[in-house]
Amino acid sequence: MEACGLIVEYNPFHYGHQYHLKQAREKTDADCIVAVMSGNFLQRGEPAIMDKYNRAKAAILGGADLVVELPYVYAVQHSDYFAKGAIDMLYHSGVSAVCFGSEAGIIDSFSDAYQHQKEHQNQYESFVKKYLNKGHAYPDAATKAYQHIFGISDILDVSRPNNILGLSYVRAIKDAHYPIKPITIKRIENNYHDTAITGNIASATSIRKEVLNNPTASKAAAEAMPETTSDILQSYKHASGYWHDWELYFSFLKYRVQTMTLAELQQIEGIVEGLEHRIVRTAMEASSFQGWMTALKTKRYTWTRLQRIFVHILTNTRKEDNILGTQTGYIRVLAMNKTGQAYLNQQKKKADLPFITKINQIKHPFLEIEERAAKAYYSILPGKKQRDFFLQEIKSPIIIK
Amino acid sequence: MEACGLIVEYNPFHYGHQYHLKQAREKTDADCIVAVMSGNFLQRGEPAIMDKYNRAKAAILGGADLVVELPYVYAVQHSDYFAKGAIDMLYHSGVSAVCFGSEAGIIDSFSDAYQHQKEHQNQYESFVKKYLNKGHAYPDAATKAYQHIFGISDILDVSRPNNILGLSYVRAIKDAHYPIKPITIKRIENNYHDTAITGNIASATSIRKEVLNNPTASKAAAEAMPETTSDILQSYKHASGYWHDWELYFSFLKYRVQTMTLAELQQIEGIVEGLEHRIVRTAMEASSFQGWMTALKTKRYTWTRLQRIFVHILTNTRKEDNILGTQTGYIRVLAMNKTGQAYLNQQKKKADLPFITKINQIKHPFLEIEERAAKAYYSILPGKKQRDFFLQEIKSPIIIK
Repeated sequence: MEACGLIVEYNPFHYGHQYHLKQAREKTDADCIVAVMSGNFLQRGEPAIMDKYNRAKAAILGGADLVVELPYVYAVQHSDYFAKGAIDMLYHSGVSAVCFGSEAGIIDSFSDAYQHQKEHQNQYESFVKKYLNKGHAYPDAATKAYQHIFGISDILDVSRPNNILGLSYVRAIKDAHYPIKPITIKRIENNYHDTAITGNIASATSIRKEVLNNPTASKAAAEAMPETTSDILQSYKHASGYWHDWELYFSFLKYRVQTMTLAELQQIEGIVEGLEHRIVRTAMEASSFQGWMTALKTKRYTWTRLQRIFVHILTNTRKEDNILGTQTGYIRVLAMNKTGQAYLNQQKKKADLPFITKINQIKHPFLEIEERAAKAYYSILPGKKQRDFFLQEIKSPIIIK
Repeated sequence: MEACGLIVEYNPFHYGHQYHLKQAREKTDADCIVAVMSGNFLQRGEPAIMDKYNRAKAAILGGADLVVELPYVYAVQHSDYFAKGAIDMLYHSGVSAVCFGSEAGIIDSFSDAYQHQKEHQNQYESFVKKYLNKGHAYPDAATKAYQHIFGISDILDVSRPNNILGLSYVRAIKDAHYPIKPITIKRIENNYHDTAITGNIASATSIRKEVLNNPTASKAAAEAMPETTSDILQSYKHASGYWHDWELYFSFLKYRVQTMTLAELQQIEGIVEGLEHRIVRTAMEASSFQGWMTALKTKRYTWTRLQRIFVHILTNTRKEDNILGTQTGYIRVLAMNKTGQAYLNQQKKKADLPFITKINQIKHPFLEIEERAAKAYYSILPGKKQRDFFLQEIKSPIIIK
C-alpha cells in the first residue's frame, strides 16, 4: 500500500478539506491518505473549537484513512518548525508523497524556489537579520527577505501565506533528503483569513465565526461542511458544554500570569527580550483576552506569536522542556478507518518509530507535555467532564469501519 | 504611650473579639491596642471571608487602635511559626504586653507550663518523634507529647486548642527574651470550632456559616457581631460580588495542579514525603474542593495542613522562597484610628524596623509573596474589579478619625 500525507488542522473539517483529500487521492493514486493533524492547540496559538479526537473523527468520516497527531511541540510553533515537525511525522509514517494546497498550484515553482533560496541563503539570512533588527516580527522579516531574494522573478509569489508554507514543506523534505514526492493543488474560492463564508468552499475561520455566532442553526456554516462535521460539532457541545475559545481560558491565563514570578515567566517557551515585563504590566488592566492581546501587540510581537506564548503559559510549556532539541520518538494514532488500519499493520513491521495509540503507552517527554496540554484544554469543563474527556487520551483510537 | 498587642484573624470581627479588646484594655491599662492580623489567607489554610483591608476596618470600628499585617509567610503556617511570627511583629511594634484568650485564663499556668516543658524538652521531642513515626500529624503528635510530659499534673490542660496556642505565644516571648508581659483572659461562651451560634458571643466559624447560608439577613449572625461588621460584610459583597470561600478557587487550584510537573509540585512550601503524587492522583477525579480534600485526607495529613498546602499552590509559594529562613523586615500598617496614628508617630522614632503602609514602599521578599497572594485572592473577581481591589495594596492605610 502506498500512502499520501496531508498536513492539517481541521478546525473544523469542511468541504475545502474534502476537496483537498479527493484531489490528493486522484493526483497520487494513493491507497491510503494519512493526515498529520495538530492536537488541541493550533499553530496560530489558539485552542481548537473541539478536541483532537472529535476533529480526527470528522476527518475520517470526511474521507481521510488515518489521522496521526502532530505533537504539541511542533504544532504550536512558527511555520518553519511546524512544517519540519509535520514532514518528519509523515516520513516516519511511511508516506511516499505529500500533497499541500497553495496559491501557486504548480509544484515546479516550489522546487525552483527551494533551489533559488538555497543559492541565495546568505543574502536571505542577512535580510532576515536586517528586518528583525528593524523591529519586525520573524514571519514578517522572512517574507520581506524572500521578496528581496526573489525580486521580480516569477518563480513563486512569496507574499501568499500558503505558498510560504508549501515552501517550508518542500524545504523540510529536501533538506532531510526524505524519499517523499511533494505535490501541490491550487487552493480554490477562499482565502485562509476570510471571515465571511462566500460559497460552499469556505475558510475554517469563517465557518468557526458562523458557528460561534449562531450556535444552533447557521445555514451558511452547515452548507460549507459535511453533515458529519455539523453533527460532531453539535454533539461535542452537547456533551462538553462548550466550543473552545480563547476567552473561556482568560481567567485561568490571567490568574496564572499574576501568580508567576518574573523568573518563571522568563522560562516559558517563546518569551524573549524582556517580554515578561510587558506581559505582567498589561495583566492587571486586562479584563478580556482580546483586550489583553490588543494591549500587548506591537510590530515585533505579532498577534499569532503572542497567542502562541499565551498557549505555552496556559499549558506550562517551558524552555527547559527543550522542545526543539528533542527527537520525535513515536507516531500517535488518533483515528482510522479499515484502510488506515490495514496500512498501519503493514507499516508497523517496517517503521523505525513505534506507532502508539494511548498517551501512557510509552514514556517520552513530548507525551508529558501532551498530557499537560490536554488537561489545560479541558480545564474549562466542569470537574467530572474534565475527567471523562481526558480519559480519551488513554483509550483506544477511534476506529470507523 | 503604652501598647498592648493582640494576635487575631477577625474572620470576621464579632462581639467575642470586642470583649477580648475591652478586657485587654482593662487588664493592661494600655493607651493603644495593636492587633497583628492575618492577611487574605488564614492560619487554617483558608481564604478570609473578605479582604484584610475590610477586616482591619471592622476591627478599628470595633475598638482596636492599630491593625498591622501578619505576613503571609507566618500567617499560613502551623501554630508554632504563626505564634513566633506574630510575637516578633508585636515586639517590633513596641508593645509592652500581649493579651490572648485561653481556656485556662490564668497566666501563671502558662509560665509554669513553659518552665515544665523546658525541663522536659528532650522527653517532649522524643515523644513528638515517636508519634510522627507512627503516622500522626505534627499538631496531633505535639498535643500527645504534651499530654505525656504534663501527665496528670494540673499545670495546664494541653488538650484545649487555645491553651496550646497561648503556650506558643508565651514560649515565643520567653525564648526571644522579649520585654513583653503575657496576659491571658478566659474565653467565654463558645468553642473555637463551634458551628452553631449559641449566644451573642459566638465563634467566627459559626458566624461565617450563618452569613454564607443566609446572605441577606441572618438574625443570629447580625446579633453576634457589631453593626459595623455587618455593614462592611454587606458592602464588600456588593462591591466585589463575593464572600471568599475555598470552593470559588477550586477551578483555579485544579487547573494549576493539573498543569504542574511533579518537580514543580515538590517545590511548593509544605509538600513532603511524596505528597505530590497523592495530590496529582486525586486531582483528576475531583469535582469540588470539599471532595478533593476528603479524598486527600489521612491521619498524617490533617485537613488544616492540606488546606495550607493548597493555599501555597494557589499563591505559588515555594520552598525556595525560604519563608522560615528570612528575617522580618518591616511592619505593615493596614488601618488605624487617631490613637493608633499617635502611637505610630511615637514608635517611628525608636523602632528598629520601618513602618510601611504600601506594598511597593520598600523591597522585601515577603512583599513579593504578599503581592502574589493578593492577586491570587482577588483572582475570582471579574477583571476590572480585580484591579480595583488590588490597588488597595498601594494606597494609604485606612485611617478612621
